[in-house]
Amino acid sequence: MGLEIERKFLVDPEKWEQFNKPEGKAYRQGYLVNEKEKTVRIRIAGDQAFITVKGATEGFTRKEYEYEIPLRDGKELLENFKLTGTSKTRYRIPLGGKVWEVDVFGGENEGLIVAEIELKSESDLFENPGFLLEEVTYDPRYYNSNLATNPYSNWKGGTK
Amino acid sequence: MGLEIERKFLVDPEKWEQFNKPEGKAYRQGYLVNEKEKTVRIRIAGDQAFITVKGATEGFTRKEYEYEIPLRDGKELLENFKLTGTSKTRYRIPLGGKVWEVDVFGGENEGLIVAEIELKSESDLFENPGFLLEEVTYDPRYYNSNLATNPYSNWKGGTK
Repeated sequence: MGLEIERKFLVDPEKWEQFNKPEGKAYRQGYLVNEKEKTVRIRIAGDQAFITVKGATEGFTRKEYEYEIPLRDGKELLENFKLTGTSKTRYRIPLGGKVWEVDVFGGENEGLIVAEIELKSESDLFENPGFLLEEVTYDPRYYNSNLATNPYSNWKGGTK
Repeated sequence: MGLEIERKFLVDPEKWEQFNKPEGKAYRQGYLVNEKEKTVRIRIAGDQAFITVKGATEGFTRKEYEYEIPLRDGKELLENFKLTGTSKTRYRIPLGGKVWEVDVFGGENEGLIVAEIELKSESDLFENPGFLLEEVTYDPRYYNSNLATNPYSNWKGGTK
């Protein structure tokens, strides 16, 4: 079991464009269960696949159980169960002893770029990478599980 | 991915009582999803734990994806998500190159004993271990997933 403590920010598309990025990794994911109190997710990340069980979010903290599974199983599960989810390219940006994960969404979430950082505690400090906009840690619309059912392209008025 | 081809029979309690049994293993399981088209199960089997995804049953055949997980995670998942399920003792009986699995249920399914055999194909033959009653392969009441929500002790009239 792991405790996930993370903070999430919107990313300025122009500053991100200019940022000296590493190579990204393609993610594709779908949900076997997608409820408020629990999610079971199948994720393809590059040439790896995972099954992940998560509980309800409490503040910054969320219980997470993640296990690697064979890539072939991951692909079959996504296809056989016709799992709907999100696709994105993830970039890992090391900074000040921590790692920012920047997700550039595709498909129905095209146009959305989100940066996440994992912290040791809820009061842990971090360096600003320069491309951040407002924090959305507490906004449930940006949960990956919600982006799967109510994608960014559906939002009226947007957030920019 | 594995294809599960199995046949299931009720067991005669008296003949089972007299049978020269090996040591049994305690099982405890609960469901993160329990729908007709898919189940996600957490199982504790002795000192091992597993997460298992299954699709819909088609004839004798069912798609199954099973992964071992740390025992501690399995216990936490059952407790944290308050998963309801079944408990039973399972006995493995080798016979004629195959293995019978006899499940002696506890809790709300007390009194139910079921024997299962896994086959190579739907027409594969097997030896009769002598304690079988009628076949219940096609009876959905005996699915473990249904025994979790509608246990044996609730059935009116029973099946004997």
